[in-house]
Amino acid sequence: MGTTQPGSVQEPKYWHLKTVLSEALDSDFTVGEVLPNERDLAARFGVARATLRQALEQLELEGRLQRRRGVGTTVAPPRVGVAVTGARHSGAADDADEAWQPLDCTTAEAPAAVCAMLDADAGEPLHVVRRIRVAQGQVVAAELLYVPASSVPELSGIEAPSGPVRARNVVRELHRLDLVGQDRSVELGSARADDAKELDRLPGAPVLVVTTRYLAPAGTAAVSVATYRADTCRLTFGDSGALEISHEEQERRAS
Amino acid sequence: MGTTQPGSVQEPKYWHLKTVLSEALDSDFTVGEVLPNERDLAARFGVARATLRQALEQLELEGRLQRRRGVGTTVAPPRVGVAVTGARHSGAADDADEAWQPLDCTTAEAPAAVCAMLDADAGEPLHVVRRIRVAQGQVVAAELLYVPASSVPELSGIEAPSGPVRARNVVRELHRLDLVGQDRSVELGSARADDAKELDRLPGAPVLVVTTRYLAPAGTAAVSVATYRADTCRLTFGDSGALEISHEEQERRAS
Repeated sequence: MGTTQPGSVQEPKYWHLKTVLSEALDSDFTVGEVLPNERDLAARFGVARATLRQALEQLELEGRLQRRRGVGTTVAPPRVGVAVTGARHSGAADDADEAWQPLDCTTAEAPAAVCAMLDADAGEPLHVVRRIRVAQGQVVAAELLYVPASSVPELSGIEAPSGPVRARNVVRELHRLDLVGQDRSVELGSARADDAKELDRLPGAPVLVVTTRYLAPAGTAAVSVATYRADTCRLTFGDSGALEISHEEQERRAS
Repeated sequence: MGTTQPGSVQEPKYWHLKTVLSEALDSDFTVGEVLPNERDLAARFGVARATLRQALEQLELEGRLQRRRGVGTTVAPPRVGVAVTGARHSGAADDADEAWQPLDCTTAEAPAAVCAMLDADAGEPLHVVRRIRVAQGQVVAAELLYVPASSVPELSGIEAPSGPVRARNVVRELHRLDLVGQDRSVELGSARADDAKELDRLPGAPVLVVTTRYLAPAGTAAVSVATYRADTCRLTFGDSGALEISHEEQERRAS
């Protein structure tokens, strides 16, 4: 494919090996299968172990391999497509919201960066809702949802002072607001210790950090910081749920 | 902040060091400043070099540090916010399109995964447009845009058989189509050799892979696979350009 082939550029040894290994995974291995140990693999492909390790790291980045202590290196299943946005016209309610399980709700001050996004004064108390997202039986994301007390004045403190019920109430009140839309950013990050625990990863594991602003006419009503497993997730942003689903299905068929 | 602090979970040594280093970067260092060498840093913080290295890798993942051969480890500037979507209502024209510089256009067959997304028969010829995206004077993304010949029947082959002009013509024809929208996915990947060269990275460097389907009433008119530098980019998805810009500005002020 002309310029589209790695071959068109002088490439390092580990990169060529990665390509060869990738083809071997398709032809000789099945999903979940444990790879031979590094010594055997290095011998099989006639490369130094350092080169092999670099190639394995690439394949892990690309979600082709999983490395788990005690298990070894296994062939990864296709990444899970996780819908971050649904239908365009529903600015207000987050279509993916049902997918989130509230764990807890505390009252706290926001980090400086969150304050700036909320146009809130540092020190203004916020409801901090902690949620996890499960897809195909796996925790794929951990979230902190920052909701200024002033955004949800209707919230009853008596009803439930803390815990999952409180968390659900805060989310409910948030969605009662006349939200005009959301904006998001996605960047690479490393899992915080508490997120890593939820995600069953080591602290510092690569994650996709999705920061969402919930926009009300008066300004930003809430900010969500969600960390998704970068190894197993593909984030999808759709014009319409239907199209997205058919997209998912196509990819599943293709893979 | 209760559950939001890493301290709430038992954390590995390198993770604690990362937190300490992160604070030191804020207080003792300026953007672009070169860090002391690993031996000195390890001594300064009283840790083993292996532990230090792990912590530095975390900070690199988070975009706080840049490691460049010949230069050493420097304090990274804040990530560049790159708008992947603009105003919601403009399904057809990609607002960010002006940001893309066409490099070349070849005629080729699509990879199997792209064929599946295009509902195209393997072997159907496609226009493959290669573009790069520049933000703040830096190449932040390299793209391959796959446009089936059947999607742009008006395209004149005589006008320009190949090269940048041909690429511009294909994009122009694509935007003449009555596109109904786009859907996207974002996932972690490693830079292909040719993309890495455009992005001034080594092959295999972490990238954010954005796959976009251009949707026409008849089906998928084109597929774009864009790789963004994960170290320096934060991808933004906005409800409205205006909001996005103010968001950017806020973050710049906050940082």
